[in-house]
Amino acid sequence: MADTLMTKEDVEALIAKAFEACGVSQTNARSTARALVAAEVDGQKGHGFSRVASYAAQARSGKVKGSAVPKVVNRRSAMVEIDADHGFAYPALDLAIEELCVLAPQAGIAAAMVSRSHHCGQLALHVERLAERGLASLMVANTPKAMAPWGGTAAIFGTNPIAFAAPRVNEPPLVIDLSLSKVARGKVMAAARAGDAIPEGWALDAEGQKTTDPDAALQGTMIPMGDAKGAALALLVEVLAATLTGANASKDASSFFEAEGTPPGVGQLLIAFDLGGQGFGSGFAARLEDLLTSITAQGARLPGTRRLAARQAVSAQGLAVPVQALRDIEDLTSAV
Amino acid sequence: MADTLMTKEDVEALIAKAFEACGVSQTNARSTARALVAAEVDGQKGHGFSRVASYAAQARSGKVKGSAVPKVVNRRSAMVEIDADHGFAYPALDLAIEELCVLAPQAGIAAAMVSRSHHCGQLALHVERLAERGLASLMVANTPKAMAPWGGTAAIFGTNPIAFAAPRVNEPPLVIDLSLSKVARGKVMAAARAGDAIPEGWALDAEGQKTTDPDAALQGTMIPMGDAKGAALALLVEVLAATLTGANASKDASSFFEAEGTPPGVGQLLIAFDLGGQGFGSGFAARLEDLLTSITAQGARLPGTRRLAARQAVSAQGLAVPVQALRDIEDLTSAV
Repeated sequence: MADTLMTKEDVEALIAKAFEACGVSQTNARSTARALVAAEVDGQKGHGFSRVASYAAQARSGKVKGSAVPKVVNRRSAMVEIDADHGFAYPALDLAIEELCVLAPQAGIAAAMVSRSHHCGQLALHVERLAERGLASLMVANTPKAMAPWGGTAAIFGTNPIAFAAPRVNEPPLVIDLSLSKVARGKVMAAARAGDAIPEGWALDAEGQKTTDPDAALQGTMIPMGDAKGAALALLVEVLAATLTGANASKDASSFFEAEGTPPGVGQLLIAFDLGGQGFGSGFAARLEDLLTSITAQGARLPGTRRLAARQAVSAQGLAVPVQALRDIEDLTSAV
Repeated sequence: MADTLMTKEDVEALIAKAFEACGVSQTNARSTARALVAAEVDGQKGHGFSRVASYAAQARSGKVKGSAVPKVVNRRSAMVEIDADHGFAYPALDLAIEELCVLAPQAGIAAAMVSRSHHCGQLALHVERLAERGLASLMVANTPKAMAPWGGTAAIFGTNPIAFAAPRVNEPPLVIDLSLSKVARGKVMAAARAGDAIPEGWALDAEGQKTTDPDAALQGTMIPMGDAKGAALALLVEVLAATLTGANASKDASSFFEAEGTPPGVGQLLIAFDLGGQGFGSGFAARLEDLLTSITAQGARLPGTRRLAARQAVSAQGLAVPVQALRDIEDLTSAV
């Protein structure tokens, strides 16, 4: 069956309507729909349409609070703590971004700590928005447990992503976004469905041994990128995104997919840097171009190149919505 | 020849005296000696006694300014820019730590950007000191070029380390400190001296191909930990530690070892987090212990365990100073 070509705005409206039909407030539905469509446009399908059904089910069951109102529970001169109120993460991150755009230019640097939060999709989206507002930023998030500490067998850490963005002159922002597992767990699930073996080095079984059996891997843990060093980075992200923000640890967070159970209550930390330095920090834009040119001039690609190419294709041709995805979205709206 | 067992303080005094004989101010000599001895005590020999001779030669040649006075060139409510004045990094980092201990508790978070700086040794030392003062902190540094962008052949990034520390109750701070190359370049140099092959995956030759020949590797580049993801992290660190601080890029920084040439002028960024949160951020200490217990309870080690064991051994037995190292230090003092 052919995909339906639609505008981004039309798909956003359709998904928002589906979420509203599941009891999500208009503001929250729009913010969440916008983020999922942006991920799909960027070719990040794991954070796009594929999430609509499970998000809707979680809103219906009340695991995600549709009427959540994220609020600042503590504000200091360079730091805000935001309670996501067990709603979707995106409205809380919208608030975090607005706060940082006020605080960072005043203080030089500012942090937003988000807790009682949920799946925040591609981190790239959030740091890129700060870059579009003229700020460099670093973001970390914790996610339900998937990786063991190095030398251990039990999952403690999520795949705990790290992202960074910085504005560029006359170019889209530089955006770096990576999770700390060697590969995404979705690849193991796909191999299990297809009955294929997985390469050694992706995952450990429940006894902490390397495995090529995807089913054993799904009972075990994902291997961190960079092995022991990656596991140390996962701990670093865990402390910043959860311990510091007051969110649930990855080991205590419920699934981002299943509709039943308590809310995951994970955390996100965003740090924004003002680029209007008065001292040696001035001249950021020129230094960044010089650095990036030294990468592209040797034929290497900048991080984020694939996202921008996917985005450009959509902007030229429209967004291809699989017929089944479209039906599922429409069913959500009419089912209630 | 047997090592000489000495107290930490005696070795510090001896090394400081040697640096002073090479024209380094007393304050700078003491700060630098303290850092090198601390690294040696922690078993980080690459940042310990092994650096004394090259540091002394750089002070003598003027590549490192012995009389440097680090100063704050810009101060905002949550950010300071510090000019290390092309001296050793440690006195500038001493100043950064003092500034952060004032700013972070006021603002919630604060950053110190250090530029025109030099080799900063084990980052663990600096973040650990902030933890001893009650602050969590994140630190990044850029270093002379050693790694290519992913898919490239020419070194652009240093091994660009990342460190993190957080205070614990009744325990030494949690300290994470890692460089972004898969292995330290020193291991390749050791293999070259011994005439041994290196394992595939450590380094690329000058054409960007994997090599097991240590000499070809020394003409080429080190492979990032985590491959493409590690290269992306190296770019992230490069932008934070150099582009943002106004320091020289790794690709433009001179050697930390050779006495001739212009100063390396690299940068360091420290971010300190106040832990006296009023909102969800309160209760940090208990949450951290819960997380760390979930690691140790499954028999896995916390990062930094080896450093603490080395330190404990020195505290019990004294610091073993190789006779040759002792002679070299004494020669530096008498040679002038």
